[in-house]
Parts: sequence; C-alpha cells; structure tokens
Amino acid sequence: MAETAALVLDVGGTKLACGVLDAGGRVLAAGRLETPTSDVASAEGLWRTVLSLLDRFDEAREGRELVGVGVGCGGPMRWPAGEVSPLNIPAWRDFPLRRRLQERYPDVPVRLHNDAVCVAVGEHWRGAGRGADNVLGMVISTGVGGGLVMGGRLIDGASGNAGHVGHVVVDPDGPPCACGGRGCLEAIASGPKLAAWAVAHGWRSADGATAIELAADAARDHPVARAAMERAGRALGIAIASATHLLDLEVVAVGGGLSQAGPLIFEPLEDALREHAKLDFAREVRVVPAALGQEAGLTGAGALVLAGGRYWNAD
Amino acid sequence: MAETAALVLDVGGTKLACGVLDAGGRVLAAGRLETPTSDVASAEGLWRTVLSLLDRFDEAREGRELVGVGVGCGGPMRWPAGEVSPLNIPAWRDFPLRRRLQERYPDVPVRLHNDAVCVAVGEHWRGAGRGADNVLGMVISTGVGGGLVMGGRLIDGASGNAGHVGHVVVDPDGPPCACGGRGCLEAIASGPKLAAWAVAHGWRSADGATAIELAADAARDHPVARAAMERAGRALGIAIASATHLLDLEVVAVGGGLSQAGPLIFEPLEDALREHAKLDFAREVRVVPAALGQEAGLTGAGALVLAGGRYWNAD
Repeated sequence: MAETAALVLDVGGTKLACGVLDAGGRVLAAGRLETPTSDVASAEGLWRTVLSLLDRFDEAREGRELVGVGVGCGGPMRWPAGEVSPLNIPAWRDFPLRRRLQERYPDVPVRLHNDAVCVAVGEHWRGAGRGADNVLGMVISTGVGGGLVMGGRLIDGASGNAGHVGHVVVDPDGPPCACGGRGCLEAIASGPKLAAWAVAHGWRSADGATAIELAADAARDHPVARAAMERAGRALGIAIASATHLLDLEVVAVGGGLSQAGPLIFEPLEDALREHAKLDFAREVRVVPAALGQEAGLTGAGALVLAGGRYWNAD
Repeated sequence: MAETAALVLDVGGTKLACGVLDAGGRVLAAGRLETPTSDVASAEGLWRTVLSLLDRFDEAREGRELVGVGVGCGGPMRWPAGEVSPLNIPAWRDFPLRRRLQERYPDVPVRLHNDAVCVAVGEHWRGAGRGADNVLGMVISTGVGGGLVMGGRLIDGASGNAGHVGHVVVDPDGPPCACGGRGCLEAIASGPKLAAWAVAHGWRSADGATAIELAADAARDHPVARAAMERAGRALGIAIASATHLLDLEVVAVGGGLSQAGPLIFEPLEDALREHAKLDFAREVRVVPAALGQEAGLTGAGALVLAGGRYWNAD
C-alpha cells in the first residue's frame, strides 16, 4: 500500500499554521506565519496567503498519496458548512473556507472544525488524552475554548459548538463576559482578563501586562500576581468540577499559553476541583497538561480526515 | 412477524414500577407499589417483591415475544455490571440486580441504567425531546438527576454516570451539598433543600414542609415561598446555561415533582438562562416540561433494549 498523508491547516487570529501528517498522525512537516493583519488583509488576500502556504506544504508530501485536507479555524462558524467568521480575523465574515478548499482539492474529503475542537481532538488522538474514552480538551489563551470526546467519539452538539467550556458559569454574580453573560470561566481565567484583574488590583506591568508576564511575577512571589493566578486556577477547577459531574470525564487536558504556568495555575485548580468534585466517580478525573503544544491543532485537524470514524460525524 | 414486547422495571426509593412496552415504546400495561421500607426489607426480600411484580407483568405480554428486559434503578451503581446500591434503599448494597435478572431471563438481553438516565432516554425516545439530537433530560425531585443524549445517542461517561447535572456548581460559595461539595444545583433546587431554605427564611408549613406545599403557597403569593421558587428556578437556569454552552444542546426536558410548579419555576429559570446563555448557538436552546410523567422511566428502560443501537453502548 502506498504511503498516505493529510494536508492540515490551522487558521488563528495571530498565526496561520500548515503541515503534512502521515497516516498515523505524525507531523512530517509544518510551518507557521503571522496572520496578515486585519486592516490590510482582504478576504481574497488572506485566501491567497492560505493557498500559498498550502502549496508549499503540499510539496512536502513527497509523493505520498493525499487522503484528505483537515482544517481548524477560529470561530464562530457555520458548521459543518465551514463558513467562517473568526473573531480575530475581520477580513473573513461568512467566508466559505471549506467550499473553497474542496474546490481546490476536489478528489479528497475536506473537513473543518473549530480550532479548539481540533486541539482537543489532537490531544485525544495522539496526546495527553490518548487511551481515555471521555476527555475534555481545553485551551486557555486569549479566550478559553475546548472540545469534547465522549465514548471515544467527538461530540459536536447541535451546531458544532459543543466544547465551549469557557462559558460555563463559575460565579453567577461575577464579572461581565465578552459573550454578554456574566461570571463565565473565560471572564475570569482568560489571559487578558486575568492580567486586567491583576492591574486593577495594583499589579504594575513593565511590558504590556500580559498573562505571561503576570505568571513570571507570580513565580517571583508577587502577591497580586499570585492572587490572580490563584483566582484563575480556582475558576478553572470549579468549571472542571461541573463538567466532570455532568459528563463523567476521565481526563481533562489543559493547554494554551496559561497552562505553561505550571503549579501556579494547576495547584489552585486541583484544590478547587477536589473541593467541588466529590461524587465517587468524579474523584477519578485526572487533569493533565496538554502534551502536543503547538502541534495539537494541526494533529486534530488531521484526525478529522485520518480518523474520521471517530472524529467526524457530519457530511 | 410476531409482535414483540419488552418487560420494564423502575426501582426507586419510594416506588417500584413495572410494565410491558410494545416494540414502539407504547406502555401496554404498568403498575407500581411502594418500595418496601428499608428497615424491614432484606436484600432477598426486596428481590422477591421485584420478582412477583415482574411475574405479574410478564403475563401482561399476552403472548408477545419477549425481546428484552430494561431496568432503571436509583444510583449509585456499578455500571454496566448493574450492581446497585440505591441511596434510598439501604437493603441493597452492591446488589447484583442485572445478573439476577439475566439468570431469570437467560434468553434475552437484560440492560440496566441509572433511573434519571432512563427518564432522559424516555423523553428523548418518545417524549419532549423527540426529534432533537442533543438533549439534556432532568429530574427535579428529592435530588436533581439527569441524562444526556448527544448526536442522537446516549452518553454514558467513564462509568455510566454522565448526566449528573444536579452537581453542576451554580454558586461556588453556596450551601453545602449532600455530595460533600458546595453550591451544587441540587443543594439549592432539590425539593427538600428548597423547602428547608423557605423554612429557614420564615415560611411556616402546615403539612410537613414539602416542596409541593411550598409551590402551592408560592401560587398564593406567599413572599418567602415565591422567593424560594425564584431562587431554585434561577439556579436551574444557571446550570442549564453552563450545560448548554458546554454541550450545544437543543432541548432541555425538565421533569420531576418540582417541574409541576409551572411558571413559578420556569419563569425564573428562563430569566437566568437568558441572562447567562448569550452565545448565538446557546440562545437557540429550548427548555420544555417533560412529557411522559410517571411513564418516562419505564419508557426509557424499555429503550435500552428496544432501541439499544442508540441507547445502549455497553456489553
């Protein structure tokens, strides 16, 4: 049997990533570039950038038979139609990304899902959730996203939006959320919200008040920075307790920038989780750092076509 | 083709229900009796009571071919082994209910699940969730339980415990919960907790301080009774908002005694849900009263064997 490969793409607000996976999900080649800034990029200009990236990596197949194209993209989107309106890419509003790619690659399946869903799928297929059947994958970054694998299969929900763990309510009287609600996990634990809380409580930033800087200050025992990490970690633990009770999860894989902060975030997370997840079955849940780093999204995008029986339930 | 039927059983802390369903899930015959009180019932005594009930309804098949036995039972339990330890039936601890029934009916599948899961399955198969693929079924009674159907299939979780919506955290600093946690939905919105809150806030009961009595007083505009219903309804709305964001649900079917209170509970529920469920996809969720009433549990138990392709994922 000839060797096969999938072409994979991950479209985010800051980075465009592209790569080639072998049939087993190994990344044979990958690269990324800055997403062209919104005020100069037109819908078609961005599409041409994507095409040139795909062309470059399509060559990296080195003769392996192309079996499909898998794509992760920032939401919201119409799914499974794949008409995308990524929050941080104003140039694309209802852009028919899946159809355009299908026209470009007419002989193979082209499948597209939310980028956080792809991260969760990647972690289940080849990362920290491997071997478990019931997994929540989370990405804590400028937002808090996620995806769900239950009974070994990706859960899509009514419109492909299952996995929005960032909008689990962790404090009904908590701060307003960008979604219009209040007290969502994302309103407390996303990088920008976390840093903003620290600034409001007296933390002075030397360099843009990012969550990365905040984590570094917390590691140096800055009291407000530590309190901010504690607050975010506890919010994560409460949301994970709720999700675990509702879903009887085995593994929660936590990725994204903030997860790099290690014990500063995972210790308060575990404390709050264990205070709230008291039912016998819920005590069994394991919260682990994501394992695939930047490759999770591409790996999961590949799984949509390379392991579609488990990870693709649409047409 | 000969007509077929399933024998169904629902084992609860207060009632034992039994019945016969035709292949389409219609209840051909059903009856219930009080669960023998815990302090006089032995494990084997209760088993004999169950057997006599089954024998009686097995006759009601009237010659239809028996295709399976479906059982709902109060948790906790080892699932799918079906070794049950219902919270309110102390006589049964690790009682091998599924195995005993399989020995009694060796020629057909015997399948058992959590009673609240069976209610959710019943409502999805033949009730308020019919036609939707992503449904949370809830039972608000002495506890708050539930079950989940996603992508048209029952979700079990790692150990058959998916659906424990009663332990979604709605107020992290809220009242202690029987599970050992704090601020769970059940600690606020279950019938007994709701009534206890009203008593603590000055409501005087004439008749045992039940949630039914409380609902009646709320309907008569008693201010504390109304405040209690409002508080429970809001807690339900917050939990449903979290579940909807996490799961991209289409329908939430709410049953159990408290759901009988109608607008007194559904209005504050809707208000809180709409305040918190703001993402576009989440606005689409519909919260509806359960449709099958007392027959939901038996109908869902029947679905485990009559529609096992969708509702039974175990051995």
